[in-house]
Amino acid sequence: MRAIFIAVGSELLDLDRVDTNSLYVARRLREKGILMDMKVVVGDHMDNLAWIVKKACQRAQLVILSGGLGPTEDDITREAVATALKKNLVFQEEIVADLKKIFRRRGITMPEINARQAFVIEGAEVIANPDGTAPGLYVDSGSCKVLLLPGPPNEMIPIFESVFEKYLVPVANYHIYTRSFKLTGISESETDARCADIYRKYRNPVTTILASPGVIELHFLGRSKNSDEEARRLTDELADKVRERLKDFIFAEKNISLPEAIVQELKNRKLTLAVAESCSGGGLGHLITNVVGSSEVFLGGVIAYANSLKSGILGVDEATLKKHGAVSAATAGEMAVGVRRLCQADIGLAITGIAGPGGETTGKPLGLVYIHLSAENFDKGLHQIFSGSREIVKTRSIYCALNLMREYLKEAMGEGQ
Amino acid sequence: MRAIFIAVGSELLDLDRVDTNSLYVARRLREKGILMDMKVVVGDHMDNLAWIVKKACQRAQLVILSGGLGPTEDDITREAVATALKKNLVFQEEIVADLKKIFRRRGITMPEINARQAFVIEGAEVIANPDGTAPGLYVDSGSCKVLLLPGPPNEMIPIFESVFEKYLVPVANYHIYTRSFKLTGISESETDARCADIYRKYRNPVTTILASPGVIELHFLGRSKNSDEEARRLTDELADKVRERLKDFIFAEKNISLPEAIVQELKNRKLTLAVAESCSGGGLGHLITNVVGSSEVFLGGVIAYANSLKSGILGVDEATLKKHGAVSAATAGEMAVGVRRLCQADIGLAITGIAGPGGETTGKPLGLVYIHLSAENFDKGLHQIFSGSREIVKTRSIYCALNLMREYLKEAMGEGQ
Repeated sequence: MRAIFIAVGSELLDLDRVDTNSLYVARRLREKGILMDMKVVVGDHMDNLAWIVKKACQRAQLVILSGGLGPTEDDITREAVATALKKNLVFQEEIVADLKKIFRRRGITMPEINARQAFVIEGAEVIANPDGTAPGLYVDSGSCKVLLLPGPPNEMIPIFESVFEKYLVPVANYHIYTRSFKLTGISESETDARCADIYRKYRNPVTTILASPGVIELHFLGRSKNSDEEARRLTDELADKVRERLKDFIFAEKNISLPEAIVQELKNRKLTLAVAESCSGGGLGHLITNVVGSSEVFLGGVIAYANSLKSGILGVDEATLKKHGAVSAATAGEMAVGVRRLCQADIGLAITGIAGPGGETTGKPLGLVYIHLSAENFDKGLHQIFSGSREIVKTRSIYCALNLMREYLKEAMGEGQ
Repeated sequence: MRAIFIAVGSELLDLDRVDTNSLYVARRLREKGILMDMKVVVGDHMDNLAWIVKKACQRAQLVILSGGLGPTEDDITREAVATALKKNLVFQEEIVADLKKIFRRRGITMPEINARQAFVIEGAEVIANPDGTAPGLYVDSGSCKVLLLPGPPNEMIPIFESVFEKYLVPVANYHIYTRSFKLTGISESETDARCADIYRKYRNPVTTILASPGVIELHFLGRSKNSDEEARRLTDELADKVRERLKDFIFAEKNISLPEAIVQELKNRKLTLAVAESCSGGGLGHLITNVVGSSEVFLGGVIAYANSLKSGILGVDEATLKKHGAVSAATAGEMAVGVRRLCQADIGLAITGIAGPGGETTGKPLGLVYIHLSAENFDKGLHQIFSGSREIVKTRSIYCALNLMREYLKEAMGEGQ
């Protein structure tokens, strides 16, 4: 089955807004072996929208639209699809009654304009929207199934899911099995070099490598026309071989972030953490505290951006700062020890470096970052020179610190503990 | 002139990768009055790509493709466009010579496979790629201009720019003028309610309101067939009226972020800042230190996630914590005063709240956040109840704190200072 996704909305063509509904839909379809051939973004423009819907329906067996189902004049998806499919729009009193109920619950009278949402494409099934006023519409024209979804993701998802289960899963013609690894402490090209000879041999499963600062993801997708078991066997055969080559860098085999994996590991071991951040400016604490439940293990720390705070609060020796500078292994070490003592934490983790674009000195290039972890009977420091913008150097520093912690939790503490 | 953009690459259909080349191209085209009607993402699939190129060329006068010009088997853009335009591919020896030079400079022999990049669509102009091996191609087929660009943005941009200046700007038929305002401390619906009666009267300029947590943007785009001056006059007429209504919330009329505006303002007034962060976990410091040059005014601060750090480092009275709780106006106030004293800063800014999803108590709902600013002879606290996920509550808290600082810098210190 071929699928085309059409996101409707002038704001998506303009001004740096990006459609994300297609990502959700593509992932769900893929899980059932329906691959998206193409996706389109089109403005709130009748001729353009009707044109692309018509072409898409000639090409694909499934066309999914999101957006343009609201009550205002620029919401034209219902009309454009009706035009493309050469069908009439029919006014349905029941929908108006439902809309009036929704507004009554909100304590207001339904604005007249919302009655536009009661127009339905002839022959379409109306899919209730539990979270908004725009119902979804599903039309099966024989050669092509067309689904109209509202634009806001929280409204789009439940409607998509109900149609997906009822009409799409039953006709999906592939069995799919996916696995993924998340890696840190290794670059994209190094990852590729270590396993390309294995995965290049396979056209099924398909291997994809995705890179973001600090984290590499490897995805494997196996397909079978016969059974789930076959799809799984194909995927496992390849993934297990790749895993063997890269296991030292894999921090997760499910969809969790590196901070989540670390918070979980700290919880398992009942350890507390405090951070001392110079160039990362609070970003390490920010990432860790994005994790639900991080307050069980994360105490906090010090953003020691100015040197006066490194000495005044963290207790870094002024002589160290003078002799080695703020960006040095010695300062990083004293920051980690200092924050651990100050916060009475089990682990102190420190970052100090030059995020740029200014600040380099002789022997200390832009992007030079020192990281240090201090724990009971354990100290480890390292440094790296990161390239990229200020924000990317910050991000890479933070992930490098998290990776040092991951290695500590794995190695120094013993894997089986 | 109608334009359609086609991003080529299976990775863009899959696994949460998003095409960003179209955003750059759309912005540049818009500056010259060429509006993008549609954009398409299509995988590395010959039939699909040739099909959409053919349809796009029937519909638009300008079709821009990015991606798929590399040397490997899945790079099929040249061939697909040739098929769609019913033109031949011609092998050009000069390109091979250029490619060999590029590889020699890198100290390696050109892999045989790169010779594929020397195939050119009959009648196309070859546009040199100073940053990579894939040259761009420009074909004017009479009714439609087709531009083939490499996928990596750093290679795409220079090639696009040279074609843009040479072939597109001369035929652009609109004069365009844009203005924008950035607002904080006001919601999207409140913004709309305050100025909709003005902007709804105008079809030219077009007004767009964009919302992200903490910041609202208003964009105005005026077009004229006659002159730059007319486009400007039209835009100013509307923008000035809207500005009058919303001036209390506007923090920038150019493309700078709220943290950038605040760092600049602190620099102008030679003031230093320290932060005390509980629920925001370092995110306030992180945002501020993303600004180049923030080290001139930002000293750092304390991530006081655990209560022991609020009292132990910041000096919040244990009796305050006991009586009012960690999430209270009193604690926020003592945190701001404490961090200001500890870091010897001119301004102390504190955030404490319940980011969720757990942690609510009787009388203290999820999303309740207290913010306090302490400066010489000045203290101001406020609280808000934010909705949204943990990360959104954190982000809204941070922007609320930044807005409190903006108001302090503007009002308490005197606007004219």
